[in-house]
Amino acid sequence: METHPPDFPLASSYPTLNRQKTSKSARDYFSTYNSKYLTVPQNRTSLHNSRINGAFEPPSCIESFSSSIINNYLDGTQEGAVDKASPSGMHFRDSKRKVDYVLAYHYRKRLPRHPPGVGSPEPTCGSASLDWVSNGGTGKGHGEPQQQDGGQHVLPEQLGPLGVEVIQLSPQDALEEEKQLQREEYERNLVEAGLEIEKDPENKSQGLSFVRIHAPWQVLSREAELHKIKMPTKKMYEITEEGGVLKTLNEIWCKLTEPLQPQVPQQENTKMKSLSYPFSREKLYLYNVKDKDTFFDNATRSRIVHEILKRTPTKARNSMGINTLIANNVYDAAYPLHDGEYEGQNDDMNERKLLYREWARYGVFYKFQPIHLIRKYFGEKIGLYFAWLGLYTEFLIPSSVVGIIVFLYGCITIESDIPSKEMCDQRNAFTMCPLCDKFCDYWNLSSACATARASHLFDNPATVFFSIFMALWATMFLEQWKRLQMRLSYFWDLTGLEEEEEHPRPEYETKLLQKKLKNKNTRAENSHEDENEKLTWSDRMPGYAANFGLILFMIMLTFSAVFGVIVYRIITAAALSFSTNGTTRSNVRVTVTATAVIINLVVILILDEIYGAVAKWLTEIEIPKTEKTFEERLILKAFLLKFVNSYAPIFYVAFFKGRFVGRPGHYVYVFDGYRMEECAPGGCLMELCIQLSIIMLGKQLIQNNLFEIAIPKLKKFFRKLKDERTEPKEMDISQSKDPQQWDLDYILEPFTGLTPEYMEMIIQFGFVTLFVASFPLAPLFALLNNIIEVRLDAKKFVTELRRPDTVREKDIGIWYNILSGIGKLSVIINAFVIAVTSDFIPRLMYQYAYSQNGTMHGFINHTLSYFNVSHLKAGTQPENSLFAQDILFCRFKDYREPPWSPNQYEFSKQYWAVLSARLAFVILFQNLVMFLSVLVDWMIPDIPKDISEQIKKEKSVLVDFFLKEEHEKLKLIESFIARDKGKHKSGTKGERIRAASFCQFNRSQKGSFTSSRSQHTEV
Amino acid sequence: METHPPDFPLASSYPTLNRQKTSKSARDYFSTYNSKYLTVPQNRTSLHNSRINGAFEPPSCIESFSSSIINNYLDGTQEGAVDKASPSGMHFRDSKRKVDYVLAYHYRKRLPRHPPGVGSPEPTCGSASLDWVSNGGTGKGHGEPQQQDGGQHVLPEQLGPLGVEVIQLSPQDALEEEKQLQREEYERNLVEAGLEIEKDPENKSQGLSFVRIHAPWQVLSREAELHKIKMPTKKMYEITEEGGVLKTLNEIWCKLTEPLQPQVPQQENTKMKSLSYPFSREKLYLYNVKDKDTFFDNATRSRIVHEILKRTPTKARNSMGINTLIANNVYDAAYPLHDGEYEGQNDDMNERKLLYREWARYGVFYKFQPIHLIRKYFGEKIGLYFAWLGLYTEFLIPSSVVGIIVFLYGCITIESDIPSKEMCDQRNAFTMCPLCDKFCDYWNLSSACATARASHLFDNPATVFFSIFMALWATMFLEQWKRLQMRLSYFWDLTGLEEEEEHPRPEYETKLLQKKLKNKNTRAENSHEDENEKLTWSDRMPGYAANFGLILFMIMLTFSAVFGVIVYRIITAAALSFSTNGTTRSNVRVTVTATAVIINLVVILILDEIYGAVAKWLTEIEIPKTEKTFEERLILKAFLLKFVNSYAPIFYVAFFKGRFVGRPGHYVYVFDGYRMEECAPGGCLMELCIQLSIIMLGKQLIQNNLFEIAIPKLKKFFRKLKDERTEPKEMDISQSKDPQQWDLDYILEPFTGLTPEYMEMIIQFGFVTLFVASFPLAPLFALLNNIIEVRLDAKKFVTELRRPDTVREKDIGIWYNILSGIGKLSVIINAFVIAVTSDFIPRLMYQYAYSQNGTMHGFINHTLSYFNVSHLKAGTQPENSLFAQDILFCRFKDYREPPWSPNQYEFSKQYWAVLSARLAFVILFQNLVMFLSVLVDWMIPDIPKDISEQIKKEKSVLVDFFLKEEHEKLKLIESFIARDKGKHKSGTKGERIRAASFCQFNRSQKGSFTSSRSQHTEV
Repeated sequence: METHPPDFPLASSYPTLNRQKTSKSARDYFSTYNSKYLTVPQNRTSLHNSRINGAFEPPSCIESFSSSIINNYLDGTQEGAVDKASPSGMHFRDSKRKVDYVLAYHYRKRLPRHPPGVGSPEPTCGSASLDWVSNGGTGKGHGEPQQQDGGQHVLPEQLGPLGVEVIQLSPQDALEEEKQLQREEYERNLVEAGLEIEKDPENKSQGLSFVRIHAPWQVLSREAELHKIKMPTKKMYEITEEGGVLKTLNEIWCKLTEPLQPQVPQQENTKMKSLSYPFSREKLYLYNVKDKDTFFDNATRSRIVHEILKRTPTKARNSMGINTLIANNVYDAAYPLHDGEYEGQNDDMNERKLLYREWARYGVFYKFQPIHLIRKYFGEKIGLYFAWLGLYTEFLIPSSVVGIIVFLYGCITIESDIPSKEMCDQRNAFTMCPLCDKFCDYWNLSSACATARASHLFDNPATVFFSIFMALWATMFLEQWKRLQMRLSYFWDLTGLEEEEEHPRPEYETKLLQKKLKNKNTRAENSHEDENEKLTWSDRMPGYAANFGLILFMIMLTFSAVFGVIVYRIITAAALSFSTNGTTRSNVRVTVTATAVIINLVVILILDEIYGAVAKWLTEIEIPKTEKTFEERLILKAFLLKFVNSYAPIFYVAFFKGRFVGRPGHYVYVFDGYRMEECAPGGCLMELCIQLSIIMLGKQLIQNNLFEIAIPKLKKFFRKLKDERTEPKEMDISQSKDPQQWDLDYILEPFTGLTPEYMEMIIQFGFVTLFVASFPLAPLFALLNNIIEVRLDAKKFVTELRRPDTVREKDIGIWYNILSGIGKLSVIINAFVIAVTSDFIPRLMYQYAYSQNGTMHGFINHTLSYFNVSHLKAGTQPENSLFAQDILFCRFKDYREPPWSPNQYEFSKQYWAVLSARLAFVILFQNLVMFLSVLVDWMIPDIPKDISEQIKKEKSVLVDFFLKEEHEKLKLIESFIARDKGKHKSGTKGERIRAASFCQFNRSQKGSFTSSRSQHTEV
Repeated sequence: METHPPDFPLASSYPTLNRQKTSKSARDYFSTYNSKYLTVPQNRTSLHNSRINGAFEPPSCIESFSSSIINNYLDGTQEGAVDKASPSGMHFRDSKRKVDYVLAYHYRKRLPRHPPGVGSPEPTCGSASLDWVSNGGTGKGHGEPQQQDGGQHVLPEQLGPLGVEVIQLSPQDALEEEKQLQREEYERNLVEAGLEIEKDPENKSQGLSFVRIHAPWQVLSREAELHKIKMPTKKMYEITEEGGVLKTLNEIWCKLTEPLQPQVPQQENTKMKSLSYPFSREKLYLYNVKDKDTFFDNATRSRIVHEILKRTPTKARNSMGINTLIANNVYDAAYPLHDGEYEGQNDDMNERKLLYREWARYGVFYKFQPIHLIRKYFGEKIGLYFAWLGLYTEFLIPSSVVGIIVFLYGCITIESDIPSKEMCDQRNAFTMCPLCDKFCDYWNLSSACATARASHLFDNPATVFFSIFMALWATMFLEQWKRLQMRLSYFWDLTGLEEEEEHPRPEYETKLLQKKLKNKNTRAENSHEDENEKLTWSDRMPGYAANFGLILFMIMLTFSAVFGVIVYRIITAAALSFSTNGTTRSNVRVTVTATAVIINLVVILILDEIYGAVAKWLTEIEIPKTEKTFEERLILKAFLLKFVNSYAPIFYVAFFKGRFVGRPGHYVYVFDGYRMEECAPGGCLMELCIQLSIIMLGKQLIQNNLFEIAIPKLKKFFRKLKDERTEPKEMDISQSKDPQQWDLDYILEPFTGLTPEYMEMIIQFGFVTLFVASFPLAPLFALLNNIIEVRLDAKKFVTELRRPDTVREKDIGIWYNILSGIGKLSVIINAFVIAVTSDFIPRLMYQYAYSQNGTMHGFINHTLSYFNVSHLKAGTQPENSLFAQDILFCRFKDYREPPWSPNQYEFSKQYWAVLSARLAFVILFQNLVMFLSVLVDWMIPDIPKDISEQIKKEKSVLVDFFLKEEHEKLKLIESFIARDKGKHKSGTKGERIRAASFCQFNRSQKGSFTSSRSQHTEV
């Protein structure tokens, strides 16, 4: 500072440069400045780490001119004199500057305050550099008791001995020291970037320390401009509403749902929206800047700080940003602060408490979500997740209702169903071929009456309708989601949001560094390509190979597990059927099916967890460049693995079980003498239904309740336990009776992304759509689950996690593609389930082609082929048969030529005709549903009409608004000039220039017009 | 002007307000101003219609203060003194201001110059209003000969008698007068919006007059800012290129294709791109404004003027913009000017000439298109069309090659094809059942040998491969187009382009006005909803109903036409077969097929033209609100009609012909005794191929050559003829030896949109993809056609059309959806063609299921069923049969039970098995290809990787650039202040303010820094 003594002509450039403080008149400003400046102490070590407030990056000496530094500094010392922690625990000590972000780290040893040459940045700036890492002894904290301020004060006596220890550095200490240096450098860079920081003194031998970061207006406005953050302007405009009937309907709907609306303060007038415009410091007059401290809301502030944190480099390891530092354990954690406590009955309502009351409790499960508030608090990305979840849950309501109706239809028509009646009719003595070799007897079809009747519940014509309905439902849902997304984009001012360049992940950087080093060693001669090197395909080759191999292995593992369960089923069934106990034998099927499905479920749950971890690991070794690619690849892998895992057994039951049985006399055997399993006489659809329902319900119940509720609690408990064990002495200090918000938030779990939440829902979406033809109640169970799920997730976000960094996103990204893929897959799968698994087509065929009188009578007989028992291979005939003497033919379910035909046991003409019908149905169903989906897709515009009109309108309103502003400015200038002329009758050239430049000045300062006027007149 | 005497303090606001002319020093400026001002004549009627140069809309009296008006006015008179037409014919008379737009109108009678109260705008502005419609007698043009300046001068003697006639107004004259008033009002409004106009005097009793419009810098910069037009900044950055092998490959490719590249001056360094940023007057220093006249290129200038023309209202009929005025015949035409002549060997190269030489000639058919130049000249929308057409044509090359290979494969394997050999083998005496009743005899299959062999050319396994290839080709093409589109968006700075609100179409406005009037009459009491009324569904109901009805009728018409041709074929075939002439009978099939296809083609061509007109009319009566909706609906309707029209006969042949024949003894008859037609013995595929090729080739040849080349020439000729007839007297004047550009352009055809061009190509795309399984040479013919088509369209745009208004578009809109729809449809259609129409599946089935030895031997026999000739109905047996005595059984092509089976003539088991196989193939093919398409879609990112990196990079470069600019500005200020301080040792307050405001001034004038500095030092 000494090299650049303050001079007033220089300082006078301030109002035009920094465009703030203009609400004071210039004269006031300068006089304040004068008096303030003179009081600046030369020794600037204070209790608070001093702040540099540079307007520009990269920092240069010029900044030291900027009076704002001095100004801020002065503010700091003045306010700092009131030395107490802020009451809310969310501000710097001056109780003014908000803590926008917190970095936490563990330190071990106290090092000397200034390793030579490190504390002073940019040697050219010389004495202008600020002596910022001055945590040590200050005039302030000296004599005060340690506990008073939550460990923020330092007893200088402690420093001496600890500082001495540095001389004999252990390896651990060296590491510690390096970390310390990196922290110092990083924080210095942050200060140079314009952020203001406050640090706790490191007054214990080891412990937790926080770096609190505040972004001043200058930084916020600069970054908001750079990132084109849209901010509301003063201009409000009316949202056009539909007239007539729609309006009335809308009003009625609003009235009806009023008790379901969360009680959250909305903007007063929902029919008005303020025009948003990318923030521009030059157009400050456009915005409604009442208070510069609150103009940007907390989420935006922390996002801006996070952006700076991410891009601020440290030279030490040539790395970029906070993520690398956290990855290197230089810092433990970095998080923005929650808005306060969520519990407590006191009146100071904060947004977190509001969210808790109106959203994050099971008690409010029936209410709509306060989606705008969620977005405001957690950012757009999380807001979109909950909006999506909400829409999905709402959409489940109609499908549940239709599902129940379809199920009820099955229940009602069960008595009038001729095939199941015929099957149960004891008079129709269909003697069936034995179900196993040797030990099983011939049996009467009427004994399978129960399963036949149950089967009808799910295998009836209404199911076909329901499949079509659900396929269209899925399309509608996706369409509506696109629309809702667009609507939210509009209201959240995300339209026109462009992708930002992302910084590489720390792992990528490390790998790149390694490669560069290796390259330098091996081929130092041709270094021309060294510059913008990146990881090529060959670098990633091992990773890709491992990926490919392991994923293949995992899928094989899943298949083996499924096959294992099949083998279990075959063997157990065989073993149980040896048993002579009658009850055992009659319950064979139930026992085997139930135990097998439970084994399936357990395997799925275990593999799910394993696959989650494997997918993460596999993505790590692929070394994706950015966080975004990482997330996408992880999602794809995890989805692939989990999808295969969850659906493999179901696919088996739906399409393969019972299709490779062979025929009597020519059975297919696995291993030694174990026949392939076949479906129950009621059809495979029944078994599919059981499989599906148990896996779906079991997965939801266990993963939701056990994993999502119990495990975080356990984790928290263990963390606490560990913390207590490692730091038993200081515990009492950090857990003092009045913990600050950053202490409270530090204990919470860090936020690790939305992937698991989405994944769970997407797999569920699969259950709801993929095999819906076999289980119409799936949507109902999904609905019940989701009502809990919403509040569970909400609770987690509000109470159990640190506040996530707010991320601006326009859409849900790759999840949409996955959803749409599942939707498409569901069409073909349902087509096959109906055509192949169910008996729908054979019945239809029988009724219209083979039946004598157009009724279903005789259907059962038609589906059963004859087998001459004398053709049974030796050794496979039933022992101890009760019927053996009486019968010549036994029956089995298939379309084959009878024994008396020339091509005995070949597939009959009926078989091929029915097969043709089945396949024709698949083609018809698939193309019809796809066509309807495309039609629905095309009929429903992606952008709601009112929103697209609104967006267009917004543009013209904006143009009008700008033109008006310009116009008013002109008028103003005119009136000024008129007044000016009145004062100075004969204008000199100098005057003219002044007037001209004043206009210019006024142009950018329009917002503070009144004070400018007074200033001018005083001149 | 008298009420506001000029005063200098006011005028001094000029440089800061209007931000131009700052390259002159302020002192210079003011002195010039002074001297100029004093020369202003009080009587401001001049030869040129005077120009008001208002900066803001809506206009107010303030504008009359703006010195720029005066300035411009002065410029006008000074330059106007050099009274000659500009040499290029593209400027105002001053040879300086470019003509950006031209309005043309016919006038009939000379009216008195000023109907009272009309000529003066805004009465409050009083004398400030300009006397702008002063075409009449001027001091200038008095004595000069009329012909000299292309009829721009007036002989005052003519005016007197004509002016008198007004008193007795005929109805026609009243209409003329109203038009005249509207023109006057409209042009006044244009002048108020800041445009400058120049008019020809209306010196004849009737004739053509032009209004030439120039947009001054002020208007251009304002509009560019409002519409966020991205302009290149000074900052250039390098486009990162791939390294290594890809780079080398790319270089080799560039070398190889060098002779194919058009010789168009590219920007010097293609590896650099200048950073673009939405134009902002406040950030003028960012841009490379060398010359304000050329900073915005011609296309941008005319776009801006067109925008203003569209939104400028006229009160008269409460209507908006030039389109309404043209619709009401107030103006005849409105168009921007071409860049000059396209022919002539003189050296002054303009872009039009360049385009003609390097693009719009058949001679350069082998070259790539200079797509960037096309875009620069015609705007993004037309640029995208040609880019799309180019990509499509390029993509046709590989598919043509593969198609030829497939065809050759068919040619080569024809000798080894066992089925056709068996068919031709005379030893296999397959006696076929007669083809018609009574007159036809039994015939030997070997007589159909030729068709069987020809059929093999198209019906072989390679076709299946080709179908899959083409389905993937279509997906690839669409993907690549998306990528190219993105790439062009990037290079053309369209990223982030947002939709603008469009003005309603004139027809919509008229209808709305009618409705409002009606409403006012009927229910004046409840007028609260009168405000933003719009056409509701009920208003449009008649339109929609008519649409629905007529489209249905049209489709029925098409079907009837197709059916008519079928009937023709059946009857002619029957009639010809009665003939006893042997040659006639043997040629029956060829004759009938050929004539029928030609009839089909003619019907298609005729209906195509009708449907085009009907679609337009139908869209008109739907009264869509905006031009965009109009276009979309028109496209959809026209596409639907033309698609059905072009493909209905082909669909018939592919899927229906020969399927409803019945069987011998039980034929299906239409009308009286005419049997349904069946396919040739070689299979329907052959006929499909003939149908397809003739329709495709015929359509292309006739529509392309006849319609596209001949008809415009005819039209032009007729227009000329008509013009000559109506205005025979003045012809010699307007056709004077040196016509101006606007005269030349007026004679050209107006541009009527890209719809017909796209439509033609899309229908062709359908031919290439939809039935490609049957005609592998389709891509080749399409390619040959397109090579001509590109140059034909190019020629049309460059030489035969008025310059189109440039339209910014990011994509090709609804066409993409149609293309992708055709692509999807092609999958299922090709699946069916292969499965159902071709013999592929039966052969496969025979080879692997029925053949004894796994070869195709015996296939023909297997496909033919037996028929007992004694079962023929009485009267249908062939008369005069040569074989009749010898045979018991005749054969026919079908899978039916033989006469000796219990279910004689029923479909056999083979039938059902083959049917199942066919259907299974459809399912397999469809889902496989769809899956592959999705995979291709997913594997190829929509945004090319380099472009997405570039876009992200651009963003960070932009941020750096801004920060650097700000930084430099600061430094500059610093140095100034230092110098300032040196001069004025003790700063006064006034000085300080001046310095501050100078910085501000400098901030926005950074571009002209050097002169500013000199200015400052002089102060």
